[in-house]
Amino acid sequence: MASFEDTSSESNVLPTPSLVIDEVRLDRNIAAMADFAARSGLSLRPHVKTHKSIEIARRQVAAGATGITVATISEAEVFAAAGFTDIFIAYPLWLDADKAARLRRLLATTLDAASTPLLIGVDSIDGAAQLAKAAAGLLDRVAVLVEVDSGHHRSGVPAGQAGVIASAARQAGLDVAGVFTFPGHSYSPEGRRAASIDEGRELAAAVAALAGVGVSARIVSGGSTPSVEFADTEVLTELRPGVYVFRDAQQWELGMSSPSDIALSVRATVVSNRNGHLIADAGSKVLGSDRGAFSTGFGRLLDHPDARITALSEHHATISGVDLLPGTQIDVVPNHVCIAVNLADEYVVLREGSVVDRWPVDARGANS
Amino acid sequence: MASFEDTSSESNVLPTPSLVIDEVRLDRNIAAMADFAARSGLSLRPHVKTHKSIEIARRQVAAGATGITVATISEAEVFAAAGFTDIFIAYPLWLDADKAARLRRLLATTLDAASTPLLIGVDSIDGAAQLAKAAAGLLDRVAVLVEVDSGHHRSGVPAGQAGVIASAARQAGLDVAGVFTFPGHSYSPEGRRAASIDEGRELAAAVAALAGVGVSARIVSGGSTPSVEFADTEVLTELRPGVYVFRDAQQWELGMSSPSDIALSVRATVVSNRNGHLIADAGSKVLGSDRGAFSTGFGRLLDHPDARITALSEHHATISGVDLLPGTQIDVVPNHVCIAVNLADEYVVLREGSVVDRWPVDARGANS
Repeated sequence: MASFEDTSSESNVLPTPSLVIDEVRLDRNIAAMADFAARSGLSLRPHVKTHKSIEIARRQVAAGATGITVATISEAEVFAAAGFTDIFIAYPLWLDADKAARLRRLLATTLDAASTPLLIGVDSIDGAAQLAKAAAGLLDRVAVLVEVDSGHHRSGVPAGQAGVIASAARQAGLDVAGVFTFPGHSYSPEGRRAASIDEGRELAAAVAALAGVGVSARIVSGGSTPSVEFADTEVLTELRPGVYVFRDAQQWELGMSSPSDIALSVRATVVSNRNGHLIADAGSKVLGSDRGAFSTGFGRLLDHPDARITALSEHHATISGVDLLPGTQIDVVPNHVCIAVNLADEYVVLREGSVVDRWPVDARGANS
Repeated sequence: MASFEDTSSESNVLPTPSLVIDEVRLDRNIAAMADFAARSGLSLRPHVKTHKSIEIARRQVAAGATGITVATISEAEVFAAAGFTDIFIAYPLWLDADKAARLRRLLATTLDAASTPLLIGVDSIDGAAQLAKAAAGLLDRVAVLVEVDSGHHRSGVPAGQAGVIASAARQAGLDVAGVFTFPGHSYSPEGRRAASIDEGRELAAAVAALAGVGVSARIVSGGSTPSVEFADTEVLTELRPGVYVFRDAQQWELGMSSPSDIALSVRATVVSNRNGHLIADAGSKVLGSDRGAFSTGFGRLLDHPDARITALSEHHATISGVDLLPGTQIDVVPNHVCIAVNLADEYVVLREGSVVDRWPVDARGANS
């Protein structure tokens, strides 16, 4: 990406803060993951919560993704309305009256009649019962994956209990398609390979637990961007990475992305420099304030690897380790790209530093 | 606020996650701060970045606020278009070509001809020069306040340098109305009074520095919600608190708000409970992930003071310290309310637990 320290080149100066995509890198990241999944003999079902973009999801499918993963009913609504027909809501939905009505509308109206059954996560007997009730009369359009806790200790059941959930779901009239997990403990410098080993072992145990109650798992779904390269191809049938399309500062600092892989940044302006104490105009309302235990700051500067964002307020990034004149535009790499994307309405798409397109963040705020 | 543990009472069940306002508490908080400012003999210019709501800003002005504070040109655009005429952009803007054009449009078109001059922060000679150039021909519609660093060490100059900036701004043709600071180091359990003392001392020094170059400060502006009660009324002329309208978990944990003062929460649903390990459907894309050094978690539960949010992902809040059935609706108090508001499109307004109105978050995303 070009340096914009020469602000006299007005064509390269963007309104700030802006969310900018390097399209060449984006396409390269999409192709690389599709190739990896194909070589591994696994289906690829990217998590679109990262980008919330119809255009990017279409590129992922064009590159070979078999379907998409979403986190919420509202994300499913956005992507189903755009014509996506193979969707997994990888979340243990609790279908109260509001969500039940929305799910029924999605199944009966928004999704194409030729769609693959909508996949939904389940991690409790009660959740399965709620889902079966909500989808009554439309049960042939839904299938569930039992969520397994493979070590991240968020939602999901221990693998040994997956059979109990599967059995209850089937008794409630639901098609149990298999199991899934999110090995989120891969987000640590030493955790990537270990999390993949946990993922493979626990998914295998969950498949056995399903078999124990007579359910054959046809989908065995795992995979976060940090862990995916170590995925157990003997156990898994599909991968659900999200962040790989863009990369971010977390992945940079985990040692798995170099700056030249990073396809998304926040263009910002240095507004103040007092003896090398810099303030830029991208704060927590633009970058988000996620910060892992291993993070060295609140984001990185793409073209200045020694710089650190040492503090973040809503509209101020405090930067040290680089000396830049006020007015200089910089590309800030968010710690966690999914959060930064959800704060913007639009992507500015660049090729070789020039604006070539603008894409909406179609599912911005679609978090219910 | 009513407890919603009985989910059979469907009228009280909201789609989740939703941003909910307790209108009685909101109005009480607005009135209390207006009364405090009046009793202290200080003007009140609330920071509307907290709520980004035209309706709430109108209530603040109706209660006696003399004007409003915003953080960005885009927030100024939203509130000027809604008829607000006394606006302070409390940020050291860097007016490049894009922002200069927007500022000129704001001054020449959006703001009413009878508006008070638009106040803008400045903390460098170069920034003042950029502003004077951008506002050429419209200089009578602008005035600047020199930003002083009173100990938060973000933007702003040391008080002793305020005269140099003021002098340069005046030479560039700008009206220098005074000085301002944000005593953000008030956000610590022991820091509130100490930050107020710093604020008063540094603002007094800055006023003296302006006098030294022949500039009389008619506005001396300070005040964050945690520090405001200790403000030096001999030095300050106005207060700019923001969070007081809603309060949040930070203020609760600083010991300056009780749960019964908190006017904003995120209604969420418990979606999973495995042996007391609860998951609710309000994650970092709804609550934000701000977490002060003094915070005990990623937010609090309004009706369950012993509960803690021990982990937060994009769509999962992991909760311990309370045992609730899946399907239970809870009111989560964000750590930092300004961040949570900027993630939502709409407020659901409640009186005694019943929905009485819906207000847009008018300036949601207006962060440039």
